[in-house]
Amino acid sequence: VVNFTRTFLAVDWGTTNRRVFVIEEGRVARTERDGRGVTAVDDFEAEAAAIRGRFGDLPMLMAGMVGSNIGWRAAPYVPAPAGISELAAGLLRINERTAIVPGVSTTGPADVMRGEEVQLLGAVEAGLAPANALLVQPGTHCKWVEMTAGRVAGFTTAMTGELFALLRKHGLLAAQLGSEVRLGQAFLDGVEEGRKRDLAASLFGIRASKLLGERDDEDAASFASGLLIGSDVAARLETQGHDTIHILADPALGSLYAAAIEAHGRTAHLIDSHAAFAAGIIAIGARNE
Amino acid sequence: VVNFTRTFLAVDWGTTNRRVFVIEEGRVARTERDGRGVTAVDDFEAEAAAIRGRFGDLPMLMAGMVGSNIGWRAAPYVPAPAGISELAAGLLRINERTAIVPGVSTTGPADVMRGEEVQLLGAVEAGLAPANALLVQPGTHCKWVEMTAGRVAGFTTAMTGELFALLRKHGLLAAQLGSEVRLGQAFLDGVEEGRKRDLAASLFGIRASKLLGERDDEDAASFASGLLIGSDVAARLETQGHDTIHILADPALGSLYAAAIEAHGRTAHLIDSHAAFAAGIIAIGARNE
Repeated sequence: VVNFTRTFLAVDWGTTNRRVFVIEEGRVARTERDGRGVTAVDDFEAEAAAIRGRFGDLPMLMAGMVGSNIGWRAAPYVPAPAGISELAAGLLRINERTAIVPGVSTTGPADVMRGEEVQLLGAVEAGLAPANALLVQPGTHCKWVEMTAGRVAGFTTAMTGELFALLRKHGLLAAQLGSEVRLGQAFLDGVEEGRKRDLAASLFGIRASKLLGERDDEDAASFASGLLIGSDVAARLETQGHDTIHILADPALGSLYAAAIEAHGRTAHLIDSHAAFAAGIIAIGARNE
Repeated sequence: VVNFTRTFLAVDWGTTNRRVFVIEEGRVARTERDGRGVTAVDDFEAEAAAIRGRFGDLPMLMAGMVGSNIGWRAAPYVPAPAGISELAAGLLRINERTAIVPGVSTTGPADVMRGEEVQLLGAVEAGLAPANALLVQPGTHCKWVEMTAGRVAGFTTAMTGELFALLRKHGLLAAQLGSEVRLGQAFLDGVEEGRKRDLAASLFGIRASKLLGERDDEDAASFASGLLIGSDVAARLETQGHDTIHILADPALGSLYAAAIEAHGRTAHLIDSHAAFAAGIIAIGARNE
């Protein structure tokens, strides 16, 4: 069996996007993102051959939805608490030089992740976050993760980004939510409203405020984003004592979460999520020797 | 000016549906529902003529979205507190024998209603609810209304039904939420989960529970309905001391809200919403003499 040390291809393979990292001598030599997420791929064997054709005929270690029942093959979840060792031990071998990192599950209450675990463990591995910390990965399905001794100890997923996308595209508020989200007063007003944890009523308020001439549509998307992110932050911080929350996200979305976290009196710390992924998958590959 | 006393046509004219009541000598002689809501109508003059052709060439008093900017003509909102007198004084006259009942607005926080006010005031007028009470009108946009001395004193709208419809039709959970909603243990489990007031996370839990084999898809729609209704009930009852909550709804949806209200230790009382509408519009017409 070939292992994934020093020089290999790492693939962060999600539902709609994919990022290939060429790892040479334990460092990222090159990285490239494209839209070939698992929903765009039928023949994963052919796709893996195409990746090797483009980036080099090397061992390949993948993570993310590629390991789900809509991906190449389903890699059973590893139960939390899970660290580098548990993930390395749970690799799903497709063939001698191709494998998938499993996701992590928890049952109190039921929750799952696939792909995020590599970033999380890598953030600690690379010293980008402490070994005991609260990390958040904003997005369609936002993950809030309690790391203990460098392992994923427990987590909660909120479909905050998906709700925002649904509201922007369908239903009563869609016509009002077309504007770009800006980090300004309307966003912060939304974060404040989010403290009520009363989404269904606060959302209707966006419509009523328009009908009564209380808020311009130009600000409605920013307010709605603040409301959804603010509700998410309020629900999570209610039961979390950490002073600093570490954010793994692109800078635009990361700065919105940072503002909401700071509005709640905590400190936000942004981490480079691609660097974290690379550190995580290199560590998993190395442990698998 | 013709008035709306004793014998006239009353129309409860909403976005997607419409109900015509033939009022003869102050009583409902006949009522009929159809799908000619305001979004299905272009020429309201012609539509009114068609109603008179079908039900009698009588004065016509309308309420609901027909008085909005997507209806026949916009009737300005009457600010709460509002009773029969204020609505009768605020009638929008289309012509000598055709008028629209205005909606009601409140500004702390911003909220609006159109059509519900007639049912609410009618419920008290007909003795179906006390003059000081908390009433709820479940639906796409669920109204919770504080009645004081028989007037609409204040209210909150939650887009509970709309969120459920969006989730059922679009996005990650749609494939799981196809089953019929039943009032059973899964619904009550959802109501319990709704107490957390953490919709975005609880909704993702529906997905995770499926992936981990913890709940059958057959029960997912009932759980999701319980979660959304339960969150709505939990948010409202937190600030409302009424022991009894009066529900204006069709029996199916009304029984779901009743179960959620009772799970919160309050008493639910179902009211016939069509009888309430008729009593309300007859009272408004009579006050307008």
